[in-house]
Amino acid sequence: MKKVSEALSIVLESSERLGSETVNIDAALGRVLACDILANRDLPPFDVSAMDGFAVRSADLPGTLSIAEDIKAGDIPRIALEAGWCSRIMTGAALPQGADAVIRVEDAREMSVEAVQISLSVQPGHDVRLRGESMKTGDAVLNAGTELTPGAIGILATVKARQVQVYRRPSTAILSTGNELESIEDPVAPNRIPDSNSHALMAQVQALGVEPVLLGIARDDPIELERYLRKGLEYDVLLVSGGTSVGVHDYVRPTIEKLGIEMKFWRVSMKPGHPLAFGVLMRSDGSRTLVFGLPGNPVSSMVCFEEFVAPAMRNMMGNSRLYRRTVTARLLHPVRMKPGRTEFVRVALTSDEHGYLASATGTQSSGVLLSMARADGLMVLPAECTGLSAGEQVIVQLLDGTAFQDDLRYRE
Amino acid sequence: MKKVSEALSIVLESSERLGSETVNIDAALGRVLACDILANRDLPPFDVSAMDGFAVRSADLPGTLSIAEDIKAGDIPRIALEAGWCSRIMTGAALPQGADAVIRVEDAREMSVEAVQISLSVQPGHDVRLRGESMKTGDAVLNAGTELTPGAIGILATVKARQVQVYRRPSTAILSTGNELESIEDPVAPNRIPDSNSHALMAQVQALGVEPVLLGIARDDPIELERYLRKGLEYDVLLVSGGTSVGVHDYVRPTIEKLGIEMKFWRVSMKPGHPLAFGVLMRSDGSRTLVFGLPGNPVSSMVCFEEFVAPAMRNMMGNSRLYRRTVTARLLHPVRMKPGRTEFVRVALTSDEHGYLASATGTQSSGVLLSMARADGLMVLPAECTGLSAGEQVIVQLLDGTAFQDDLRYRE
Repeated sequence: MKKVSEALSIVLESSERLGSETVNIDAALGRVLACDILANRDLPPFDVSAMDGFAVRSADLPGTLSIAEDIKAGDIPRIALEAGWCSRIMTGAALPQGADAVIRVEDAREMSVEAVQISLSVQPGHDVRLRGESMKTGDAVLNAGTELTPGAIGILATVKARQVQVYRRPSTAILSTGNELESIEDPVAPNRIPDSNSHALMAQVQALGVEPVLLGIARDDPIELERYLRKGLEYDVLLVSGGTSVGVHDYVRPTIEKLGIEMKFWRVSMKPGHPLAFGVLMRSDGSRTLVFGLPGNPVSSMVCFEEFVAPAMRNMMGNSRLYRRTVTARLLHPVRMKPGRTEFVRVALTSDEHGYLASATGTQSSGVLLSMARADGLMVLPAECTGLSAGEQVIVQLLDGTAFQDDLRYRE
Repeated sequence: MKKVSEALSIVLESSERLGSETVNIDAALGRVLACDILANRDLPPFDVSAMDGFAVRSADLPGTLSIAEDIKAGDIPRIALEAGWCSRIMTGAALPQGADAVIRVEDAREMSVEAVQISLSVQPGHDVRLRGESMKTGDAVLNAGTELTPGAIGILATVKARQVQVYRRPSTAILSTGNELESIEDPVAPNRIPDSNSHALMAQVQALGVEPVLLGIARDDPIELERYLRKGLEYDVLLVSGGTSVGVHDYVRPTIEKLGIEMKFWRVSMKPGHPLAFGVLMRSDGSRTLVFGLPGNPVSSMVCFEEFVAPAMRNMMGNSRLYRRTVTARLLHPVRMKPGRTEFVRVALTSDEHGYLASATGTQSSGVLLSMARADGLMVLPAECTGLSAGEQVIVQLLDGTAFQDDLRYRE
C-alpha cells in the first residue's frame, strides 16, 4: 500500500511531457508554450504620450506655450517643437521631435485654440513611455513552458504570433466496468446502478481542456474486458473505473499482464480512494499509455482523478502547476477521524472577516455523489489525525475549474 | 465619476439573466441549470453492501456461519438467510433477504468454501447502504441555479438526464478602435501599435465559456464607427476597446446617442481602468445589448473586463458566483500609492508555511501587458490607501481560469 505522496511521485515520473503541435492564437487559451516567443518590434515603437494632453519641452515650464499641431494616436508628428511651443497630443500618440514630456489636459489651461498656460514644472520623461519600454526587438517576451493565460495571449497578438507551438494534449479514453452498471441510454432496471463515473470523469477531463472518448461499459468477463482494454490502450491516458475491489475479479490481473501493462501500484493509503491502481504500457516506439484503475464508487473515482490523474495530465501538457490551488480555512464544526489514511473530506467554503470557513458537505460516504456536487473543495486531513475541533485551521484544495499551483502544500 | 462598487451595481442591474436552452450532458460542464433535476429512482435501489465481505444476520454474531451463495454487484440474491447462514457479497451488491449487516472480508476468517468464522459483533445496518440513502424518487437532486461541476454532471448521469435546460450564454462581439492599431494580419508598420486587446479580450471571454466574434478595428471616423457599432449591437454583449479618452473624439457620444444606447457612466474611480464607459441598448422586444467601452490600454482593458464584464456575463448565464475568488496574502515589499482611486495591482503569488505572499509583477504602467501575463492575481488597494509596508495583509483576486465566489470581499 503506497502513501499518497509515493503514489503521486510514481504517477508523475511515469507521465512524460508530450510532443508539440501548432495551434492558432484563437485556440491557444490554457495551452503551454513549447518554444520561446521573441519580440518582433520595439514597443512602444517610438516615445509616446502616456496621457491625453500636451507634448512639451520640459525646460519651457512653467509658461504659456503656443500650440503647433494636434497629434492623434497613429499620426506621424509633422512639426518639431522649438522653444515656447507645444503640441496637443493623445494617449499613445508619438511625441514630436523636441518634446521630452507630457502635461495632462487637466493640468493645462487652454487660453485659446492656439495657446495653453501650464503652471507646473516636470522632469524630462514625465508621462512619456519610451521606445522599447514594453519590449525590445528580439527579447524573449514569453518563455517555453508558459501557460497561455489571456494576458499571454495578448502578448502573442502584440508580436503577431498568429500560430504557436504548444504541448499536445493527451488523448484520453474512459471505460466503466461492472455487471451492475446501466448506461445513460439504457432504461432503468431495478437491479442496476447508473453509470455516473463515465460522465463525471468526462467532465473532469473536459475541465482540463481535453475532450475524452467514452468507451462504454465492460461487463465482468475476461474476453470483453480485454477487448475494451485493447481499444483503450490506443490513447495516451486510459481511465478505467470499477473492477479493482478485492474478491472475484481474478481475471483482471492476468488480462492486464497479457496486454503488457506494467502495474506500479494497486492500493493507496487514502480515503476515499483506497483501491486506486496505476500502470503503464510502454511501447517499442517510446510512446506509452498511462492506465488508471479508479475505484467504482463515484466520489472515490472523482477524488482519485483530482489527486492523481489531473496532475499527470497537466504534466503531460507541459504545465508546471500540477496541483489544485489551496486555501487555509477554519473548521466550522469538530471532525472525528480514524487515523491511518490521508483523508480528503468534501467541504463547502464560506467566509467571514477573518477568512475562509470550511464545513463538510453532508455524509462523507463514498457512494454519495451529492456531497461532491455541493463541495467547493477537498479538506486534507493527515493520516495521523484523530480529529479536529471547531475553529482549527485546515488546508482546502479548491475544486474550481482551473485553479492550480506548483506545490501540494498539505501534510499527508 | 463612479466608485467601483457603484459602477458594478449599475452593470449588474443592467445584466439580466438570459433565457434557457437545451444542451447534452457531454456539453454541460460549467453551464447553470435553468430547472430542478428530480431523481428518477431510489439509490441505492435496494439495501446494498458498502464493502466486499459477508452479508450476515447481526443477531448471529459472533459465530461460525455457513455460506449460502456468492452475490456480485448486479446479481439478484436467490437465497434468503436463515439463522446461522451468511452470503459472500461484493461492494454494491444487493443484500439477501434476512441479512441486516455486512462484515468486511478482512474481519472474517474463512474456514472452507462453505463456512466462515466471525469473531466480532456489529449493529444492524453495519456497512450497509440503505435503499434511497443517496436519493429518493422525486427528490430535487439538483436545483435550478446550480453550476454544473463534474460532480453535478455525475448526478445528471445518475438520474439519466441526458439533456438539460441551462441558461443561454451571451453572444459576444469584440471591437477595437483607433487609427494607430494594426491587426494581427497586417504587416508591421513603424507608426502603428499592434491590436492586442481584441485577442486578450477574446481569451478572457473564452475563459468564461463563451466563443466571441472579433469584429475587427474601427478607424477614428464617425461613419466607420457607426457601421461597426451597428454590427456589434446584434450581440448580447459588445466590448469596444479604445476611443474613450478625453479629447478629439467628439463624434463618439453623438454616434452612441444616435444608435439609442443609453450610457450609464463614462468614468470609474479605479486604476488602471479609469476611462471605462458602460451603456445599454434596450429594444422594444425586451432584449438588450450591454455595451462596454473599455480603455485602449491593454492592461486597463483586461482589468476592467475582470472587474465588470466577467461578473455581468456570469450574471447573464445564471451563475450566482460572480466575482473572482480572493485569498489573503502578505506583501513581500512596501507599496507607495497616491490615494483617490481603488487600485488593482498585478501580483505574483508565492507561499510559505504561513500562507500566500504577494509581490507586484514589474512595472505597473498600464501599457505593460507583460505584468498581466506574469500575474497570478490582482491585489486590491482601497482608494484611501497611501501605502503599505512589507508584511501587511492584502486581498488578492485570483486570475486562475474559472475560480469565482459570491461576494467581493475587498474594500474599495
